[in-house]
Amino acid sequence: MPTEIFLQSPLDMHIHLREGAMLDLVAPLSAETFAGGVIMPNLVPPVADLERLEWYMGEVRRAVGEHIFTPYMALFFRNYSEADLAAVREHIIGIKLYPEGVTTNSEGGVKSLSDAEQTMAMMQDMDIPLLVHGEVPESFVMDRESDFLPIYDELAQKFPRLKIIMEHITTAAAVKLLDRYENVHATVTLQHLLITLDDVAGGLLNPHLFCKPIAKRPEDRDALLHAALTAHPKLMFGSDSAPHPLEKKECCGCAAGVFTAPVALAMLAELFDAHDALDKLQAFVSGNAQSIYGLRPPAKTVHLLKEPCTVPAKYGDVVPIRSGGEIGWRVV
Amino acid sequence: MPTEIFLQSPLDMHIHLREGAMLDLVAPLSAETFAGGVIMPNLVPPVADLERLEWYMGEVRRAVGEHIFTPYMALFFRNYSEADLAAVREHIIGIKLYPEGVTTNSEGGVKSLSDAEQTMAMMQDMDIPLLVHGEVPESFVMDRESDFLPIYDELAQKFPRLKIIMEHITTAAAVKLLDRYENVHATVTLQHLLITLDDVAGGLLNPHLFCKPIAKRPEDRDALLHAALTAHPKLMFGSDSAPHPLEKKECCGCAAGVFTAPVALAMLAELFDAHDALDKLQAFVSGNAQSIYGLRPPAKTVHLLKEPCTVPAKYGDVVPIRSGGEIGWRVV
Repeated sequence: MPTEIFLQSPLDMHIHLREGAMLDLVAPLSAETFAGGVIMPNLVPPVADLERLEWYMGEVRRAVGEHIFTPYMALFFRNYSEADLAAVREHIIGIKLYPEGVTTNSEGGVKSLSDAEQTMAMMQDMDIPLLVHGEVPESFVMDRESDFLPIYDELAQKFPRLKIIMEHITTAAAVKLLDRYENVHATVTLQHLLITLDDVAGGLLNPHLFCKPIAKRPEDRDALLHAALTAHPKLMFGSDSAPHPLEKKECCGCAAGVFTAPVALAMLAELFDAHDALDKLQAFVSGNAQSIYGLRPPAKTVHLLKEPCTVPAKYGDVVPIRSGGEIGWRVV
Repeated sequence: MPTEIFLQSPLDMHIHLREGAMLDLVAPLSAETFAGGVIMPNLVPPVADLERLEWYMGEVRRAVGEHIFTPYMALFFRNYSEADLAAVREHIIGIKLYPEGVTTNSEGGVKSLSDAEQTMAMMQDMDIPLLVHGEVPESFVMDRESDFLPIYDELAQKFPRLKIIMEHITTAAAVKLLDRYENVHATVTLQHLLITLDDVAGGLLNPHLFCKPIAKRPEDRDALLHAALTAHPKLMFGSDSAPHPLEKKECCGCAAGVFTAPVALAMLAELFDAHDALDKLQAFVSGNAQSIYGLRPPAKTVHLLKEPCTVPAKYGDVVPIRSGGEIGWRVV
């Protein structure tokens, strides 16, 4: 059994870095261990034009400092003109579509997908990937993703050359979709490989594991885990690490999001090791994303040892996953 | 449309009054509007012998003070001898069975039902009702009640003269069970007539609506509501009102329980009024329980008016359901 591994250019294909003081806190924590990440555009207001995109990329680069880390910028989906798309194309990795009101700062998202088709058709022609928060906001919370899957069917068939990424999938049914359409891919988070609704609300209520999409059933978690551990070539790691200050989590009316970025690689090593699948981790955290997006991330080697480390109780005022607990692997 | 109603001897067939200062706070709030209630025995240690039962009944009577309110005492299920049961029989309304570890202070509950059968057989012979927290603790949180239903089937068939009460049912499948066995009855809470998991975890996480069994799917809520609004003769109101101090609710690791007792009758009037079913409320909050248990509660008339009232933000340090909000009906 290996007691150390070296990961080449690990990528976090779905990350919330926020802005201001929170950005300054969390961006270096991602950049310490990842070579790059897909930066979500759900600021207030959203990152929805070239000017704001360039400003935000500058902010991220400034916050990252000396670390080797490429921010792959995602634009917030709007009905853009061809000129808009042409101008922004070289600066982005894709465009992120949020159904209106489905998660933190998704106000101003898309209300009707048929309105969005013209933009999608242009994205297909210009080879701009579509990143999707796939939930039907009006559905019952446990059904929101599965109710959205027919929309993926429709989009995949209507735009067969559009690269579609189902972001942070949480259900066995979504895993199955990966094999149905050549142009459909997915990211999955660390927490959805580990937990079910039981961990959020089965014992005491645990706000630090509350996220959207909400963790689902054991059979869903098992299907996601199997796909990750076998490095399904259409599945990428995307932490969806989403920092909120403590007072927004441990309160009446807690915000959705789990902060995982600083410990994600160590916990993934622990998880893959526990399932004798360490040889699949490189593909899951980098290789698959490189193939799917055609990325060439900066060279960066991350050395992990099978040695216990203790997770800090907090980073600033943000409580991470497994706060104060132990991980069986650590980044050297 | 009626703008006032008079309820005769409303009963809360499932209530947690705790002990000490919390008992002093909440018992009068129940006794203000209810004529009696079934007092749950899950103290630490549990109410599991005659001495402790008599002590607890005395505590409840003291806390209730001048109010007209009969405490119907439930004993904590253990494997009792015939002599134990004979001694306690006249002092209790029934015996409450908790699967081990399923809810607040259920440690020391039953681990194996087959061990419990001898006691159940004696209860059947002595006409002592069995009150059951029907959840399989090891199951996925959304399945814990439905996974328990086969145990109700088994008990109902094995002990056809044993009066079985499925406490705080939350699923459409449990409602169906009411019509399958003559000896199976149920209580339902206020919150399970109103909410689904969406209200707990669909938007922001709401610890004040987190309870066990957890609120289920919309079709479950609809089935419970239909049975209540039609005053299904085997269904009784039992609030399961469960006070926790604020710091146990708005925290990381929030305790399960919704505090509803002080506003339950006003909210039930509002709910039944909204569905044109006010004529069924008397049976739901008293008549059915009297028939099922053969009770003769003290005379007490509660007058409700269709006039808005504001729910206090807190009672002591306990946050009630709809804290700070408005109810369309009020107790005069």
